[in-house]
Order: sequence, then structure tokens, then C-alpha cells
Amino acid sequence: MPFEVTILGSSSATPTSDRYPTAQVINARGRYFLTDCGEGTQIQIRRQKIGFGKIRHILISHLHGDHYYGLIGMISSFNLLGIHNDIHIYSHSQLKELIQPQLDFLKKELQFKIIFHPLNFKTPEKIFFDDKVEVYSFPLKHSIPCCGFLFRERERESNMIKEYIELYKIPVADIKKIKKGADFVTDDGMIIPNSQLTTPPLPPRSYAFCSDTAYYPEIVNTIKNVDLLYHESTFTEELKEWAVNTLHSTALDAAKIAQAANAGKLILGHFSARYKETEIFLQEARKVFPETEAAVDGQTFKISH
Amino acid sequence: MPFEVTILGSSSATPTSDRYPTAQVINARGRYFLTDCGEGTQIQIRRQKIGFGKIRHILISHLHGDHYYGLIGMISSFNLLGIHNDIHIYSHSQLKELIQPQLDFLKKELQFKIIFHPLNFKTPEKIFFDDKVEVYSFPLKHSIPCCGFLFRERERESNMIKEYIELYKIPVADIKKIKKGADFVTDDGMIIPNSQLTTPPLPPRSYAFCSDTAYYPEIVNTIKNVDLLYHESTFTEELKEWAVNTLHSTALDAAKIAQAANAGKLILGHFSARYKETEIFLQEARKVFPETEAAVDGQTFKISH
Repeated sequence: MPFEVTILGSSSATPTSDRYPTAQVINARGRYFLTDCGEGTQIQIRRQKIGFGKIRHILISHLHGDHYYGLIGMISSFNLLGIHNDIHIYSHSQLKELIQPQLDFLKKELQFKIIFHPLNFKTPEKIFFDDKVEVYSFPLKHSIPCCGFLFRERERESNMIKEYIELYKIPVADIKKIKKGADFVTDDGMIIPNSQLTTPPLPPRSYAFCSDTAYYPEIVNTIKNVDLLYHESTFTEELKEWAVNTLHSTALDAAKIAQAANAGKLILGHFSARYKETEIFLQEARKVFPETEAAVDGQTFKISH
Repeated sequence: MPFEVTILGSSSATPTSDRYPTAQVINARGRYFLTDCGEGTQIQIRRQKIGFGKIRHILISHLHGDHYYGLIGMISSFNLLGIHNDIHIYSHSQLKELIQPQLDFLKKELQFKIIFHPLNFKTPEKIFFDDKVEVYSFPLKHSIPCCGFLFRERERESNMIKEYIELYKIPVADIKKIKKGADFVTDDGMIIPNSQLTTPPLPPRSYAFCSDTAYYPEIVNTIKNVDLLYHESTFTEELKEWAVNTLHSTALDAAKIAQAANAGKLILGHFSARYKETEIFLQEARKVFPETEAAVDGQTFKISH
């Protein structure tokens, strides 16, 4: 089952003719999360041929417009497309007030519930889990309250080595226990250790989304050893002062965070519209963290085992 | 000076991967009007390389989201780009309430005034004029109050034939009068008739924008003899019943309006997402009104004399 991230927008506050504002779809083993929802997100989702009906969880990092102005259009389209699933929105509690008049205008027709989940901007918190994936929010450092998100596969069970099922005539109930770590005792009392009966599970994969933030090493513990890290880099070091003043990061800042967190790979994004090319970001970051890529609208990053 | 219409979006309620929701820029002799502002309008404007600073008047036909969800993003970008011109918005009075919480969130930074002009949905009304162009709103027939807009060049002055200025030694003050229709009297009392001194002015050009509407022949008088007519055609006759039920038009409806109005040319648009191609709309409309084109995102229609 895939664990992958599709970039829908890699621009910062003002979009360009080829970069949309921030939005990503995370497909975590068949669970779809829309993370931020800048203007035009629904058009980008359609271009990527991702079914609207798959998206039931929308995470909004903060309330700057380039991270949520596409939300009302998504909701309106869910409705026009006849989608009936409830939609869960994880965001600052103020988001509801910001779009409430527009929701009221639609209300007569709305065919699903919208459930708002207020984020905690003080400490990391688990905001979602099911049998396959868990999602955490964690505070970033920006001009208004802002969260990052960490997506992590749940621990899997060990893999049963099939030959032993037949050899020892292991009943189904026992197979379940063995997959969770139990040894097996044969009818004649022989103990077969779990390590002999199973192979270890695949390690859980993980992805961290660090939306708008100043350089903020306090996040490193939360995202430690993440397989794939998205970290904003609005500017390069040449405009370090701008980054500091606007509470954004440079490519070098992002690379330092990736290095400190021992990330598997770094994706840069949220590029200021003043940069036509992203090569300069890559050069800057790769000096510190070679496994760096630049986000491109429409690109999918797969996390393999 | 050009008089031209650039299509930014030709889709109806749900955008497709290659058709944005409704928005157009009308350049009427250097005056720029943004007419409707669906989601993604600012990205389309950037692609067309139209300067944001040129747009000071935004006309919103009605409050369905596909006609205004891009407005808050435009306003936010005006601000981020350091634009200081006041912005005039012509719309239903309720628009202000719908976006007010989002405007308040921006407010601390907003560097220009937004002046809301409520539209009249009962009778045609002049909503703007200057020395070059005048703009009228007029009611359409839709599920919520909806206006079309008529853009018309002001009558120009006659053209002075230059040779006569020297021949009769005509002073500057008299030239101005002659251009407005006066005869000229020479020092020895001879009357030179205006018709001899001037050539007639170029006829005023005009464009009508008929946003979401059922077939509604009541508009024909208002848009009579218009050079270029945009009329929605969400469906073709095959789905006539849908058009009737949703208060939209078919391509044939649009063609009948163009014919009755004696329009110079018809542009169809607001195509339902169920149609992959627009050829079927053209075939249907051209049977009644051969001078029909289908709107394509990014296309500019120039009105020549």
C-alpha cells in the first residue's frame, strides 16, 4: 500500500503562473489527507485525477489566505458532486468564523456534515488515528498560530512464515497471536519461539509537513527520523533578513532542520514568487543536506520501505 | 485603443482540469474591468500578464461561488503587491457580508479602500462612466438575483480634416467646437459647414456579458446591436430540461438571443463539466447564429471598428 505525498502547490503568498499556493494530498495506505488548501486546490486535485470522494480529512496549518482560500470551493464542489461523507477539518478554531457566512449561503443544499477540530498550538498532539495511520499536529513559529503535521504508519504485525502453519498445524486463532509476538506451543508441549515463526514487520513510514515557520529547532524532537520531510523555504540565504522579519525560513534553515532530525529526504517549497527557478534553493540546501528536492506542482513523492 | 475581452474561465459551477470558473477581463480603451471572479482568477490574470494594478473595478454578476470565490485572493494579492488604488466592487449588497470576516482578518494590513456598489436587480442602470466608456448592469433570470453587464464606448468627437486648419487658419478654440459639431465662420463671414471640415467619428464599440441566466428575451432591448455578446450556454438542447430546471441556457437559447439582439458576434461559455468538447455547442448555436465562437480560457476577443 502506498505512502505518498502529491504537491498541489509550491508557491508562497502570491501564486505565480506555474506555482499554486500551498496544498498537498497525503495518501497514507489508502487514507487521504488534504493538507492546506490554497486557492485553486480543487483544480489541482482534478488535474491529478484524485477522487474528491476520497478526501475526508482536511488539515489547515494556519489562517493566512494562501493556505485556506481554496477551502470554500472544495466544500462547494463536494456538495455539487453529490458527496455525502462527513468532512473533518483540523484548523485554528477561527477558521469556522471566517467561512461561516459563505457556508450559511450554501447551507440549504449541504448534503454532509462539516466537523471542525480545533488545533492545539502549544504542544504536539495526536489529532487522528485509525488502524493504519496516526497524525500529529505540532506548533511551528510564525506570525500567527501555525501547526505542522506528522503522518506516521501504525506499527505493523510480524509476518507469519507460511510453511510453519502447515508444519505445526497452527490454528487461525494462534496465527493472530503469533503475528502480535506470541510463541507457539505444539500439542506435545514443544515451544516454538516467535522469532523462528515470523519475520519482522516492515518499519512504519512517516512524513512531516512543516508549513510556514521561522527556523525553529524545537520541532526536531517531534519529527526525529522522519522518512520524508517537507519544510518551507520561502527565501535563500541572500534574503535571510527577510526570512527572519517575516518568520519564514531559508533553504539552509530547512536543510539544518532535516539534518538535525535525521530525515530520510527533504522537500523544499513555499517559494517566494520573486524566484523564477528553484535551482538556487537546491544548491544552498544540498551543501548541508544532500538528499534535498524542490517541490514541483503535480509531483508525487513516494515513501518506500 | 483596444476594446477587448479576455476569457479567464469558461467552466460552470465545478471547474475542470482545463477550464476555470467564470472570470473575464474587459479592456475598454485602457480601462480594465474584471467581470466575475471565480476561484483561480488571480492565477489566470498572471498567466495573461495583465498587471494587477490596472484593475480597479470588479463586477460580480451574482453570489454563486463559481463567480466570486476568487475575490478574496485577488484582494489579498493587491495588498501583498503593494497596490494602493481604491478598488470598486459592483455586486449584490450581500457580498460584503460574505467576505467581511476574511477582510477583517486582513484589515490590519490593507493599504487601499474597497468601495462596494450595490447592484440593482430590477431594471437596467448605469453603474460607471468616464470620458471613454460607460457600463450598465441589467437583470438576468437565475435562481438568485443576477445581473449582466453592458460595456459601451462613449460617442467620440468628429475628426477634424487637418488641411482645413491651415487653409482657414482655424484657432485651437474653434477646432474643439468643430469636433463637437460646430460650423466655422471665417474672418470675412463665410460659413464653412461642419460636414466639410470633419469626417464622422468611429462608431462606439460595445460588449455585453450575460452571466448565468435562463432563456430571457427581455434582455434583448438592452443589448440591441451589441458588437460582441457573451451569453452562457451551460447545456445543449439534449439537456434542455436541466437548463430549464436550473435556470441556465442552452447553446440554442444563446444563439436566439444573439440573433434577436442583432449582435455582431456571440461567445458561448459557462460550459457544464460533463462536456469534454465544445464543438457540440458551436454546431447547435451556428444553425441559428453563424457568427458564434466558444470561449477558451486565455483567449482574447478583440472588437474592431
